[in-house]
Amino acid sequence: MASDPNGPLLLLNARLADGRQGVRILIRDGRIAALEEGAAPAGETAAAAVFDLAGDLVLPGLVDGHMHLDKTLMGLPWTPHAAEPDRSSRIANDERLLPTLPLSTEARAGHLIRRSVAHGTAHIRTHVDITPAFGLSALEGVLAAREAHAGAVTVQIVAFPQAGVMRHGPRAVVDLLDAAVRAGAELVGGLDPCEIDRDPRGQLDAIFGIAERRGVGVDIHLHEPGELGLFSLQEICARTTALGMQGRVTVSHGFCLGGIAESKQHAAAEMMAAAGVALATHGAGGATLPPVMLLRRAGVRVFCGNDNVRDTWSPYSTGDMLERAAIIGWRADLRHDPLLEELFAMATSEGAAALGITEYGLAPGRPATFFTLPAENIPDAIGAHPPRRLVFHAGRLVARDGAYCGPGQEPLKAG
Amino acid sequence: MASDPNGPLLLLNARLADGRQGVRILIRDGRIAALEEGAAPAGETAAAAVFDLAGDLVLPGLVDGHMHLDKTLMGLPWTPHAAEPDRSSRIANDERLLPTLPLSTEARAGHLIRRSVAHGTAHIRTHVDITPAFGLSALEGVLAAREAHAGAVTVQIVAFPQAGVMRHGPRAVVDLLDAAVRAGAELVGGLDPCEIDRDPRGQLDAIFGIAERRGVGVDIHLHEPGELGLFSLQEICARTTALGMQGRVTVSHGFCLGGIAESKQHAAAEMMAAAGVALATHGAGGATLPPVMLLRRAGVRVFCGNDNVRDTWSPYSTGDMLERAAIIGWRADLRHDPLLEELFAMATSEGAAALGITEYGLAPGRPATFFTLPAENIPDAIGAHPPRRLVFHAGRLVARDGAYCGPGQEPLKAG
Repeated sequence: MASDPNGPLLLLNARLADGRQGVRILIRDGRIAALEEGAAPAGETAAAAVFDLAGDLVLPGLVDGHMHLDKTLMGLPWTPHAAEPDRSSRIANDERLLPTLPLSTEARAGHLIRRSVAHGTAHIRTHVDITPAFGLSALEGVLAAREAHAGAVTVQIVAFPQAGVMRHGPRAVVDLLDAAVRAGAELVGGLDPCEIDRDPRGQLDAIFGIAERRGVGVDIHLHEPGELGLFSLQEICARTTALGMQGRVTVSHGFCLGGIAESKQHAAAEMMAAAGVALATHGAGGATLPPVMLLRRAGVRVFCGNDNVRDTWSPYSTGDMLERAAIIGWRADLRHDPLLEELFAMATSEGAAALGITEYGLAPGRPATFFTLPAENIPDAIGAHPPRRLVFHAGRLVARDGAYCGPGQEPLKAG
Repeated sequence: MASDPNGPLLLLNARLADGRQGVRILIRDGRIAALEEGAAPAGETAAAAVFDLAGDLVLPGLVDGHMHLDKTLMGLPWTPHAAEPDRSSRIANDERLLPTLPLSTEARAGHLIRRSVAHGTAHIRTHVDITPAFGLSALEGVLAAREAHAGAVTVQIVAFPQAGVMRHGPRAVVDLLDAAVRAGAELVGGLDPCEIDRDPRGQLDAIFGIAERRGVGVDIHLHEPGELGLFSLQEICARTTALGMQGRVTVSHGFCLGGIAESKQHAAAEMMAAAGVALATHGAGGATLPPVMLLRRAGVRVFCGNDNVRDTWSPYSTGDMLERAAIIGWRADLRHDPLLEELFAMATSEGAAALGITEYGLAPGRPATFFTLPAENIPDAIGAHPPRRLVFHAGRLVARDGAYCGPGQEPLKAG
């Protein structure tokens, strides 16, 4: 938004992560105009709508770097998980179930977006299924949901070949992915080039070909375990370097990194750092967790996402990125405050950098995109992840006490 | 409590886990006097205090089968983790830090008890450090906290040799553990008999000796990985069988079960089932997760606990057993509704059975010990783990909207 239709906002008695208290935050034209201790200058209070934070902590908007907005079942009555316990069955189940649901992709994605915003999420990267069965329909639904919630959250879309690429022939999915990028997806995705397509060269050449031709980034789901996944990762890094795409390629999950010898973890981390390939993790669930701190120490960008939130793949997750950070930190054995601060960066600034959000952070001049909660500091906020009190996006109050109040709410039902 | 000083309570418009709605629950003399669909008989409504649940789900009280009430930092300002990343350093850190805290064991344990109750926990098994440095002081603090909160939660205490047993000589810790049992601990604990004591035979003979002499159960922390832990587990099962202690011995954590070949997992599960040795898990954090469903299918009792809640060992956990169940289910890859129902049993009835609580469950005649929350069914309650609305313990309202209102609250501070 270019301006605040309701004039400036003034937040008093804020606590910051660096320990400062009694801080005053002035929001003007959607940006942080002042952020400092001490009383407001004469006239400032009178000019603005005032919120007394009463000592609540203020943190920059959370970044959910890996979601599946199109698969969520939010907004529906409880829908039991219906797939068999393997990836192929889940893919087939999606094609069977999703088109029959009584809520559209747009409506379901909207429910999850609003829940995410109420948890303080400001920026989302979502994968959207692009398959022969769905064509671009899931993308169209998510694009509509994104449009409806513009001003409350940014949504970056990966055109995700959930049903594989080459197994449908040399062109069918490639053409769909290309069309998805032309229709508004900012990245092209991939999926287990060995296990799903049995043709790693074919899939990776195809998706990197789209990325090169259209000038978009790449984010590849890599569930392949151990040495198999490492092989695919090497191929991804080689193509990233060859095309000069450093900093614009992500491997999501990368479970293989948790299932190889420690010496190979180090070599893989150096390879990823040199190629500028990032890792997105949700904590790996039942799979092997990548060594997130080893990767960071080698210079790899690591960021976090919730992945499946109450959807056709999983009954779990609330969409809260602070709860997600707690799960990841618990699994990664991060106990000391400095490590918890790094963990928070993986759920905020590192994700923002991966998503290419240049104006990010709690500082004068930046967009007023932040949330408040009753916590002492960042480790406390992660450990307890209490409900968020106020959520602002670019200067606009978009959620309060867990209730979304931004644009794109469901119209009230008649009678 | 023998009676409800305020007379009967009537809950209307309850939803039950079996799908029934519009259910009426009458509480009289601390017990469920009626639990059925349909209108109240004439006179019942007039006689009772009435709560309209408005369709909220009612579930039996949660069982937290593995806690460390004496180590928590709840009630204190944020206290950064201070130990090095190994068990020995954490043990030494406890001895250094805990006695210097500005809140007593009783006060800190009370904070965590009240938080747990507000999350719907009705029954706790807590380990309490019994060490040469602490003697029985931690036990005395937890006993006092238990007494102060009687009527809101039951607390079962394991005399836990956190600093090892035999490494302090043949008698020092054994005598302390024996004294702890005489002072009120219901079980005797143990800890990694190979890694900590380097004397598995000595430690296990000593603690099973106390159990036999005093007629108490056993709950042993077993973090030892892979084949080493399996060796200790075999020794535990052998002693359990030899002493006829089937059903009264728990192995907590049992990470080793997640780090051995699948054929050995099956053999270990059969061994545990035959010996009547249960497993308590918190989801294993950074360690290997025991195969909880494989164990259950073999007949092993598996139950859940939060383990460390914001304490000297870990900055994580909120004390919520539904959130804990979600973490365990996510790691154990339990996605289907029937598996989520089994998971719920591990956080409720299986824990109650392990703790020896015979009168458990949501049924007429049983103690009115349950909680309400806005959820459709058990899978929904686990997946979303929304805040609890009402928590009753033996007919008494002990928490409401996240705020504890049972006995043992902190006195109001003066002026």
